[in-house]
Amino acid sequence: MHGRQETGVFIWVFNEKVHITQGDLEGKAVIVSWVTQKARGSNTVLYWKEHSCEMLKAHGKSKTYKFYNYTSGHIHHCTIKNLEYDTKYYYMVGVGQTERKFWFLTPPKPGPDVPYTFGVNGDLGQSFDLTLTHYENNPLKGQTILFVGDFSYADTYPNHDNNRWDTWGRFVERSTAYQPWIWTVGNHELDFAPQIGETKPFKPFKHRYCTPHRSSGSTEPFWYSIKRGPAYIIVLASYSAYCKYTPQYMWLEQEFPKVNRTETPWLIVLMHSPWYNSYDYHYMEGETMRVMYEPWFVKNKVDAVFAGHVHGYERSERISNFAYNVVNGICRPVKDLSAPVYITIGDGGNLEGLSTMTHAYYGWHRNQDGYAVDGDTMWLFNRIWNPIDDSSDDDS
Amino acid sequence: MHGRQETGVFIWVFNEKVHITQGDLEGKAVIVSWVTQKARGSNTVLYWKEHSCEMLKAHGKSKTYKFYNYTSGHIHHCTIKNLEYDTKYYYMVGVGQTERKFWFLTPPKPGPDVPYTFGVNGDLGQSFDLTLTHYENNPLKGQTILFVGDFSYADTYPNHDNNRWDTWGRFVERSTAYQPWIWTVGNHELDFAPQIGETKPFKPFKHRYCTPHRSSGSTEPFWYSIKRGPAYIIVLASYSAYCKYTPQYMWLEQEFPKVNRTETPWLIVLMHSPWYNSYDYHYMEGETMRVMYEPWFVKNKVDAVFAGHVHGYERSERISNFAYNVVNGICRPVKDLSAPVYITIGDGGNLEGLSTMTHAYYGWHRNQDGYAVDGDTMWLFNRIWNPIDDSSDDDS
Ligand SMILES: [Fe+2]
Ligand SMILES: [Fe+2]
Repeated sequence: MHGRQETGVFIWVFNEKVHITQGDLEGKAVIVSWVTQKARGSNTVLYWKEHSCEMLKAHGKSKTYKFYNYTSGHIHHCTIKNLEYDTKYYYMVGVGQTERKFWFLTPPKPGPDVPYTFGVNGDLGQSFDLTLTHYENNPLKGQTILFVGDFSYADTYPNHDNNRWDTWGRFVERSTAYQPWIWTVGNHELDFAPQIGETKPFKPFKHRYCTPHRSSGSTEPFWYSIKRGPAYIIVLASYSAYCKYTPQYMWLEQEFPKVNRTETPWLIVLMHSPWYNSYDYHYMEGETMRVMYEPWFVKNKVDAVFAGHVHGYERSERISNFAYNVVNGICRPVKDLSAPVYITIGDGGNLEGLSTMTHAYYGWHRNQDGYAVDGDTMWLFNRIWNPIDDSSDDDS
Repeated sequence: MHGRQETGVFIWVFNEKVHITQGDLEGKAVIVSWVTQKARGSNTVLYWKEHSCEMLKAHGKSKTYKFYNYTSGHIHHCTIKNLEYDTKYYYMVGVGQTERKFWFLTPPKPGPDVPYTFGVNGDLGQSFDLTLTHYENNPLKGQTILFVGDFSYADTYPNHDNNRWDTWGRFVERSTAYQPWIWTVGNHELDFAPQIGETKPFKPFKHRYCTPHRSSGSTEPFWYSIKRGPAYIIVLASYSAYCKYTPQYMWLEQEFPKVNRTETPWLIVLMHSPWYNSYDYHYMEGETMRVMYEPWFVKNKVDAVFAGHVHGYERSERISNFAYNVVNGICRPVKDLSAPVYITIGDGGNLEGLSTMTHAYYGWHRNQDGYAVDGDTMWLFNRIWNPIDDSSDDDS
């Protein structure tokens, strides 16, 4: 650990809460984010390919924010571009100060014949340890985490104590520094607190986390798409406006036609608030988005939808429910082989083996099992290339 | 008209597009807004009570905005406070320059026994002349306009030509300078144009129009409440987020319990996108908000809901439709005497004689009639004090 002289005082610069996410549409860029306390520190990220002697540099930006009586450290975001596919890179932050080294694997070039595994996680909160440890010990662990929202639960502490955002970032670092996490916002990211003068939704999230939203033509970090290996992943925002004419709606309407299922056979959607949920808790909160977008999901044959919010596990059959016209009384979900499987995962799970155009393996692991036992599994059949019934109760 | 010397050039300062709205919760304040071209001009509003020699002053603020290749004039907003109820005031803008004088009437103190008439208007666009002229010639014309959204339709012109906002403001001035207009935003106020780099929704609206949203604890100008005479008026935002946990939801949840129907027996809601709409055009666009808030409207016995958007006229019976739980199949609107009457008014109408706690008279006037003929009328019976059936087809 190195120190640094600044205005006559010797300061230790800690670089921590390191996290990475995909930095473009195709998977050739990575956004590296970290926080330094006490002094700004360097904006530079050094990176190099495994077995390569060529050290490369990227420069980012940093900023701080205030939330009521809290002031953040210097939050750095730096995008590394033009990476090679399917390659291990090392990277270093805290250059010239407290240098820390990590690594990541870039995904294969998007295409139908590249095996890939995603981990799915959500609602970690401050008791994430069990889920994360469990996930890390799973021999099939995901190369990328699809995070379906609810990060630190700072909003459940007095004045939304933003130190909780720091502790959360620090303790998930052992995963987020090595594997890209694909971020979806949940209700706990709203941090709407007019009683203490904090009225701009998502303020801590927006400062601390980046998403590659511009690469997919989105105008806000809360909704966006990425391609990763054989999957096209659409991230939606449950707590932004989504009615017709709104930015999210206009974006999503233009997004579906861009998906080329020959290039990326798997179409996955992430959102926080589930549309289909049989738990009493949060029951029907997702209806308001479902009535807007469900016809598009079915028309475009989304393979699977992952949501969080509800702290339990649930997987739907392939159903749809949009024949309703207010007066016709047709409002029960019906079996629909063009519809996605809806998976609510306030817990952790894996979406594995997206390696053929026809089959994928999905497994959910119960925390209480403490080891790699699948609590629920299914072979997910692709809705474009293999749209036969895969969602009946017997896991056929 | 006066000129003014500035940097050696003689400049005429035009003060125009004058409009007023209520400036507080109770009706004792007015926000005066106007635009000056070429030079900023004075921020001051002079005002005085009719028959009074005492000239009073209020000071506002001004700003400009850019939208693509358009730069606005200096837009002034000035709040006049501590007005007396039920009083005629004169006011003057352009002080020291192009002085222009107007007047307004303050409402009576909120209470159940004060007669009051509202005009209802929406979707004026650039062909407002007929509607507005018609409205002005109606002998029962409203003391205050409830405007249900869609102002200038600038977004339908190349690059959202913001000059259209100016022409609109100029031509409605003959009404907006004398009568408070209560503003509701419509889809045409979104002005979302990422193709020309304009990605912040409602930018022209936010700069040009003010609402007294802070007085009712709202954090955005798009949703708020006012009391005016015997009415409590809740304005909702069809194109902002309204799902559970969002700012609009949190606000509305706290708002209903504040309504004291002994003080303000009439509870009126304004929104742009109608919940009940039998026209094909825009069919079911309002469903996404309806599924969130309809139970609250019925529980709190809203008397009437006015919406725009659909360019036709329609009035519902007192119905509700929220027994649905996804699997029970109960999804048809049913007669419900606790439910509001839903009135869609892409055209103009009047809500009159809110002078007793039990009855009000509502009349809609067709533009094509060209004079004060009611196209649809009903006696609206108060849902708290006189909740008998008033919405059957025979206008009983
Ligand atoms: Fe949640
Ligand atoms: Fe509209």
